[in-house]
Amino acid sequence: MTDQALRSWVAAANEPGCDFPIQNLPYGVFSVADQQPRCGVAIGDMILDLAACEARGLIDAKGSFARPVLNDFIEQGRAVWDRTRARLTALLAEDGDRGLPLVQMADATLHLPIRVTEFTDFYASRNHAFNVGVLFRGPENALPPQWTHMPIGYNGRASSVVVSGTSIRRPMGQVKGDYGPLWSASRRLDLELELGAIVGANSRMGQRISVEEAEDMIFGYVLLNDWSARDIQAWEYQPLGPFQAKALGTTISPWIVTQAALEPFRSPGAERTNPLLPYLQEQRPGFYDLVMGWTMNGQTMARTNYNVMYYSSAQQLAHHAVSGCPMRVGDLLGSGTVSGPAPDQTGALLEMTQGGKLPVEVAGQPRTFIEDGDQIGLFGYAEGDGYRIGFGPCTGTILPAQE
Amino acid sequence: MTDQALRSWVAAANEPGCDFPIQNLPYGVFSVADQQPRCGVAIGDMILDLAACEARGLIDAKGSFARPVLNDFIEQGRAVWDRTRARLTALLAEDGDRGLPLVQMADATLHLPIRVTEFTDFYASRNHAFNVGVLFRGPENALPPQWTHMPIGYNGRASSVVVSGTSIRRPMGQVKGDYGPLWSASRRLDLELELGAIVGANSRMGQRISVEEAEDMIFGYVLLNDWSARDIQAWEYQPLGPFQAKALGTTISPWIVTQAALEPFRSPGAERTNPLLPYLQEQRPGFYDLVMGWTMNGQTMARTNYNVMYYSSAQQLAHHAVSGCPMRVGDLLGSGTVSGPAPDQTGALLEMTQGGKLPVEVAGQPRTFIEDGDQIGLFGYAEGDGYRIGFGPCTGTILPAQE
Repeated sequence: MTDQALRSWVAAANEPGCDFPIQNLPYGVFSVADQQPRCGVAIGDMILDLAACEARGLIDAKGSFARPVLNDFIEQGRAVWDRTRARLTALLAEDGDRGLPLVQMADATLHLPIRVTEFTDFYASRNHAFNVGVLFRGPENALPPQWTHMPIGYNGRASSVVVSGTSIRRPMGQVKGDYGPLWSASRRLDLELELGAIVGANSRMGQRISVEEAEDMIFGYVLLNDWSARDIQAWEYQPLGPFQAKALGTTISPWIVTQAALEPFRSPGAERTNPLLPYLQEQRPGFYDLVMGWTMNGQTMARTNYNVMYYSSAQQLAHHAVSGCPMRVGDLLGSGTVSGPAPDQTGALLEMTQGGKLPVEVAGQPRTFIEDGDQIGLFGYAEGDGYRIGFGPCTGTILPAQE
Repeated sequence: MTDQALRSWVAAANEPGCDFPIQNLPYGVFSVADQQPRCGVAIGDMILDLAACEARGLIDAKGSFARPVLNDFIEQGRAVWDRTRARLTALLAEDGDRGLPLVQMADATLHLPIRVTEFTDFYASRNHAFNVGVLFRGPENALPPQWTHMPIGYNGRASSVVVSGTSIRRPMGQVKGDYGPLWSASRRLDLELELGAIVGANSRMGQRISVEEAEDMIFGYVLLNDWSARDIQAWEYQPLGPFQAKALGTTISPWIVTQAALEPFRSPGAERTNPLLPYLQEQRPGFYDLVMGWTMNGQTMARTNYNVMYYSSAQQLAHHAVSGCPMRVGDLLGSGTVSGPAPDQTGALLEMTQGGKLPVEVAGQPRTFIEDGDQIGLFGYAEGDGYRIGFGPCTGTILPAQE
């Protein structure tokens, strides 16, 4: 039986366009009513309660599924990931166990699936890097000279990573005025459409990681919205990079889509303009044919594909450790804003509106940046033959600033 | 009895120049032989075993002193810090309890005193910012325009923070060549002399923190050496800031000197050239009269004072939360390199040698950057009337690169 022919006894999992068929099996953390949060797997419109499965002896993960984050499961390593996936596939297949402990996803609260150990954000779409570079530094200095040689990234703030559905407060901060800085609510609030990779293994201090080893260390992926206050960013970011402009919140989707589920969609990325140094070269394509896009108040604003990116998560992870930096289970690596070349393929309003100069239309009104009450949603999915590997929603609504 | 007249029954604590008199009482984590690491306080040449004290009912910290990091003790809050300090002072004073569980510091292994939650590094010495700015960007763009208006900082990497005595591997990485990037061991390896503040309380997402609240949230301070690969930094750092150049390791001293111990040394900082926005204004001086300096292979290279700084740790913490970023117990905030105006007051070789152009003499040999086998030591102390509040050693030795 081939993968695409696999069906589940959970009926909704087999419906066209369902994000969570049996081929997906993404991990998350959920609670129902006043239960403690525990680990689960999404299947159709249901969640399989993995803690209950383990309590019944249906699966073995050393008790880690009863915890409120997936870190302890992930830390057990790839052999356990593979064995668990095979077991879950057997339990949920058409000839599987119809007495499993399932709960309706609609009845559950979804929590942050991991304790984010550290968060790093990259900058790996050439379109985005060029477009933003033009706006911040002009066309002649748009693409930094090292950009095609290394995956540029910066350390972000793990404490401000939140799960989809969490409201985000418009930040106050310093912005540039004509006669010095002003104290202001951000007037140029933006999103960034990204894919987040979750590191599933530790590396030692001083240990470099090859791209192949790095790929083997990645547990899975989430959608990631790196909310950005562009006016605060413009004033603060030189010379040490973005700081408070990116600290208002980073939203991730609740379901971690595993590397195993995305494997059939492996794809080349953007064409390289120069060879990379050996430590960044990969033996096989490290990207996925993965549709990504975003909505504002339900209206689709842009649609692009993860395979426009120039550096894969594995290359980013290899670069992250090149100076000897230890990587840890639960580290979250943002891909950088995923933007195609056209305006309706851009993953940020800054690019889409050319820095606010060309408003776009939302519900019949011109719009440059995000207004209070706006809801931003990210989406992402890979289309298989008769099934779809989806991420589910990744949303956030902006609350007014508190002055 | 005034503080300066206080003496301990531990004889070495009363000797002139001792870093750890009874007025200091810094916290750390230690182990002896094959014992599990536990919390202790330095007194003279001894360590008071706080886990054993608690086991004997001499002190109450809810069992937190038996843990291998101080985070759980710190999280209990300022009232517990104050009560514990008063109790330790009573136990160790001349009329105290001579049967306390003490171990010789010389027999103990000192461990990283906290689990570093996140690490942020600032840039708060005007001399350093200007000197480095000249070298990276020329004199006309040396001091960034926002520098006198906000404490510029960037998120560093918590996983690479290590305790004094840990060897540091010279990193490999990308450096700029005439015809593109080269794969090379760093040839411009440097130190940064800093003070690290340890956050002792949590803040909520979306919550701003006043400078007064921020000061109240700081548990204490360590010496901090933010090792820096200047050639990797120059090639990578625009536009998103330093990344792998700072990921090879950050060394901190094992003893956390509390804010309470430094209180008598409160001092104004550098003179301000412009008023700050209200959220950064402080009601009283937030700096300390604290001698800081560094040695190479035992030779003193520079000596300056923490009170040359332009932004205090409390101002840095207030700024860190201005956009709503949640701060957490165990967050470590590097002050930025502490540099006075003269070459023998600089906290980095980059400044001292003007980017390698003016070698300094070490053991009779000209020297620009750090060579394999060099040991760098930081020192810091405040001189009281008849006692000294010291930090003890903060050292690291450079191992050759692994190609």
